[in-house]
Amino acid sequence: MENSEQSTKSNKKESDVQEIVVLRWGHRPQRDMRLTSHVALTARALGASGILLSDTVDKKIKETIEKVTKNWGGNFFFEMGTSWKSVVKGWKAKGGIVVHLTVYGENIETSDVLDRIRKSGENVLLMVGSQKVPKEFFSSDVSDFNVSIGNQPHSECAALAVFLDRFFEGKELAKKFRKAKITIIPQERGKKQQLNVDFG
Amino acid sequence: MENSEQSTKSNKKESDVQEIVVLRWGHRPQRDMRLTSHVALTARALGASGILLSDTVDKKIKETIEKVTKNWGGNFFFEMGTSWKSVVKGWKAKGGIVVHLTVYGENIETSDVLDRIRKSGENVLLMVGSQKVPKEFFSSDVSDFNVSIGNQPHSECAALAVFLDRFFEGKELAKKFRKAKITIIPQERGKKQQLNVDFG
Repeated sequence: MENSEQSTKSNKKESDVQEIVVLRWGHRPQRDMRLTSHVALTARALGASGILLSDTVDKKIKETIEKVTKNWGGNFFFEMGTSWKSVVKGWKAKGGIVVHLTVYGENIETSDVLDRIRKSGENVLLMVGSQKVPKEFFSSDVSDFNVSIGNQPHSECAALAVFLDRFFEGKELAKKFRKAKITIIPQERGKKQQLNVDFG
Repeated sequence: MENSEQSTKSNKKESDVQEIVVLRWGHRPQRDMRLTSHVALTARALGASGILLSDTVDKKIKETIEKVTKNWGGNFFFEMGTSWKSVVKGWKAKGGIVVHLTVYGENIETSDVLDRIRKSGENVLLMVGSQKVPKEFFSSDVSDFNVSIGNQPHSECAALAVFLDRFFEGKELAKKFRKAKITIIPQERGKKQQLNVDFG
């Protein structure tokens, strides 16, 4: 099996590990700072490879997330400024699929949509909007799957978390983050952190 | 097996269905409006019975959540203003257990903490804080379990979502909400809502 950079990005086989990159749409600088931070940190902590803040630039949030990654480890990337259309086009050109999280989509619990996403074997661009996303998100030119985390209104942050937890079957929560300066030692009571000064 | 109101609130057996009520600590009116709304809506959509906003009063958020419940159905309750200490005391007096969601706790994926919570058979008060919670939350006088959704920093909203999804084993996402005025019909593409005008 090839493991070159290119082969991990396209033409993936079912047995390979699919990668997830989150596309956050509709972020408004300042006003959405906290919520988008939560979305980005959730993406990182629950196994996504990176996040793309589409159609806007917000240096403050980029700094916040990159600081977390620097301290807590891993290779999570944060990019911004590209239009969602270009991102989707580029993603599809590399053979990836697009999954749109929306309350109107196929229910992740009552349908087989997650199986079908897994069976595609392709890397996933996971589109997370806010209240009013462009209609095109639902069209077959854009989304390969529209997925709901239940069909009740709640939160894009919660929806993202459940999708990632189910997609990676919980394994993401046991992952070690490489080159972490800070590590938490889980315990029954109290707070325990370890500062790692000697990483490479 | 008894099914009286009282028996569902205390001395629960392992085979009964455990109920979860969320305690949201550290909400600041206005500043935390959106994030706490997301937490409350996540609690509702993912199977909790209600939410208690402790130590503060915020009429606007109560109205927002109650409006969602009125339109989208179910019996989710929203209460506020009581101190967290009183809530915990009252909860324990009824035989319930307290679970504190914290990044420092036992990892839900790598430990057996969820099994132990289930085995208690008791109703769960699920404490969801923000960045700086009182130290007492970690003490055995308050929390019976400290649970982390991975040991990386992310979001209380995401942590709540994953906890509820795992606790209820996904069944919460298939739940019908009684007396809903609006229902979404999940589908592969587009948006489909049903307005229910003839409920009782």
